[in-house]
Amino acid sequence: MQRRSGPLSQLRRGHEELVLGLLRRHGPLSRGALGTRSGLSRTTLHDILGALQASGAVVTVAQDGTAPRGRGRPAETLTLNPDAGQAIGIDFARRAVHVAIVNVAHEVVGSASEPHGADLALADRVELAERLVGSLVEGTLRLGALSAVGVGIVGPVADSGADREDLPRLLRKRFGVPVLLDNNTRLAALAESIWGAAAGGQDVLYLRLSHGVGGGLVVGGALHRGAHGLSGEFGHITVDENGARCGCGGTGCLETVASVRAVLDAHRTAGGHAEDVAGLVAALEAGEPAARDVLRSVGTRVGAVLAALCNAVGPGVIVVGGELAETGPALLGPIEAALSAHILPISRHKVSLRRATLGDVGGALGGIALVLHESPLLSHYPAEPEPGEESP
Amino acid sequence: MQRRSGPLSQLRRGHEELVLGLLRRHGPLSRGALGTRSGLSRTTLHDILGALQASGAVVTVAQDGTAPRGRGRPAETLTLNPDAGQAIGIDFARRAVHVAIVNVAHEVVGSASEPHGADLALADRVELAERLVGSLVEGTLRLGALSAVGVGIVGPVADSGADREDLPRLLRKRFGVPVLLDNNTRLAALAESIWGAAAGGQDVLYLRLSHGVGGGLVVGGALHRGAHGLSGEFGHITVDENGARCGCGGTGCLETVASVRAVLDAHRTAGGHAEDVAGLVAALEAGEPAARDVLRSVGTRVGAVLAALCNAVGPGVIVVGGELAETGPALLGPIEAALSAHILPISRHKVSLRRATLGDVGGALGGIALVLHESPLLSHYPAEPEPGEESP
Repeated sequence: MQRRSGPLSQLRRGHEELVLGLLRRHGPLSRGALGTRSGLSRTTLHDILGALQASGAVVTVAQDGTAPRGRGRPAETLTLNPDAGQAIGIDFARRAVHVAIVNVAHEVVGSASEPHGADLALADRVELAERLVGSLVEGTLRLGALSAVGVGIVGPVADSGADREDLPRLLRKRFGVPVLLDNNTRLAALAESIWGAAAGGQDVLYLRLSHGVGGGLVVGGALHRGAHGLSGEFGHITVDENGARCGCGGTGCLETVASVRAVLDAHRTAGGHAEDVAGLVAALEAGEPAARDVLRSVGTRVGAVLAALCNAVGPGVIVVGGELAETGPALLGPIEAALSAHILPISRHKVSLRRATLGDVGGALGGIALVLHESPLLSHYPAEPEPGEESP
Repeated sequence: MQRRSGPLSQLRRGHEELVLGLLRRHGPLSRGALGTRSGLSRTTLHDILGALQASGAVVTVAQDGTAPRGRGRPAETLTLNPDAGQAIGIDFARRAVHVAIVNVAHEVVGSASEPHGADLALADRVELAERLVGSLVEGTLRLGALSAVGVGIVGPVADSGADREDLPRLLRKRFGVPVLLDNNTRLAALAESIWGAAAGGQDVLYLRLSHGVGGGLVVGGALHRGAHGLSGEFGHITVDENGARCGCGGTGCLETVASVRAVLDAHRTAGGHAEDVAGLVAALEAGEPAARDVLRSVGTRVGAVLAALCNAVGPGVIVVGGELAETGPALLGPIEAALSAHILPISRHKVSLRRATLGDVGGALGGIALVLHESPLLSHYPAEPEPGEESP
């Protein structure tokens, strides 16, 4: 796992984030003010600021906002470097690469996407990602100041395979910084909880109804991974013991009734003719009963599963994304009705059901969030961080 | 909520825990060593140590281990005070009070329980708790050094009512320290993840099958609460749309098939005669088919629910507790079989199913864990803690 590191480096990273956080909130501050507000010793602060300046994340300005002169020694004021890149997010989806960038002030500098064939080689995808990043940077962003790249991939992170091991290596070679990897659907969950439909939500359940059915949990503001990197596999919850065989090897999984293909198949069985989700939306708009009935049936199944998960996990917001969410109230209405019917009555009005807002770029934005959340100040702190020890 | 406090006090508490953690791990340390290892400034360290000494949590010793003499100024060495109480856990169960105590070294000093009638008044229960604590302390523990009391209660914490508001007030009056409250089943989950069947587990799902059916989730080593304090309500997940009416107002909840009463009723319907769980265990031991069949049927239902939750949440360990767990393999076998049948195949061998080990005192131990976990170093840190601001 890329995210493990010794208590020493975690403590150091925590101190760095503390200093960056103060500069983010207050703008330029003197060394003295930073010392008082952070509670760090002069020596520790000196080290931390040295590293942040060397990486280009922090620069000095004179009191009047210009660069300091050589003469005398004016009180040195420090500020974030707006040109410094803090994090890149890349989503290697099945048939497209999406990228997004934030600067040290945590402002999204931009995002870009490009589709490709499903069989494009890994190295070519990485090259495409690099090209997309280049198109956003336009010479102003200092890539040398990047703290990390957060990357979304298809499928469970626990899966192994040549590709999985090659990817971090290839990316590290290209960008020269640490690479953090996670499932792209889970990253979309994290992004929706920060910039999307559940912005500011600490406990969020995200369900994606697309060609596959999956999702992610944000718990206490952090992405929940599970003991072995396996969580958010909502698509493989059994909803019908006598149902269809699922690609995962199970029977009657939610994915066998709520994936795009399952819904289109059911629609055809009911006499409909939609070729894709756009066709289904058109059928709905034309008032076709088959389309409405199929989505009601699927929504009822989905809502019952969401109710079970709400009773267990207690999210404040449920976000439904993926292509099928484009069918709107025809699907979300029945989901909400079944959710309300099966959720613990005292929880009934405490969870809000919303449609995802970030679209395709959610995974890449989630990659950025992953990098920003890896800070021990934002995610779990080690039990007893301590200088002088290299690893737990 | 008792757990909210401003960034300033959280930062301070973080610094205190950092210092206590160093002393816990290393034994006595000089001020200089504490400064170097903590990275805190001299001023900050002075304040933190002053407060810890005033509370009795930390005491000074001379280099040879005895109290410092008056003459000269020997290098002051600091150590944890083994007589200082760090936390009390109290579980106000339906018909009993359980208490447990740890000292500042996080050693469990002892635990005690006493049953009472279901209608005992709240004030009398608090008095009983105080008496039980007194029986453990025996004059050696300094209650004045207690940092907090962690308390388990029956039912969701989100519930309001006179009792809920009275309890923290009564306890604060008795013990003079902050009171942290949570559902006692969730606290048992936390305790099992620290001292019980899942000791050391970071991601644990605890299911209690008793007169009620409930549970708790430990996520990344911390108790998961959910957006509105509603989580772990596994007993109210629908397992049979056409099932019996549940006390919660729903229909066909897991509790309607897997509570002690539901199981005994099903056993009677199948021709059995057990009056209680002990009777059911006796029937099993006598080889009675009705007892075995009923538990197989219940276990199959339970296992399917656990599989759904595993796919969603990804625990490393599932702990099954409560009276019904006393039926042992007759219940756990079918649970495991159904879990294995319904869990995502790649997760199948990654989750371990275990019987709870802490018994009745789990809730009280969980109260202690709650207090120890409230440290920002162990639970979620505020995004940008900062001296000079009183509250977010």
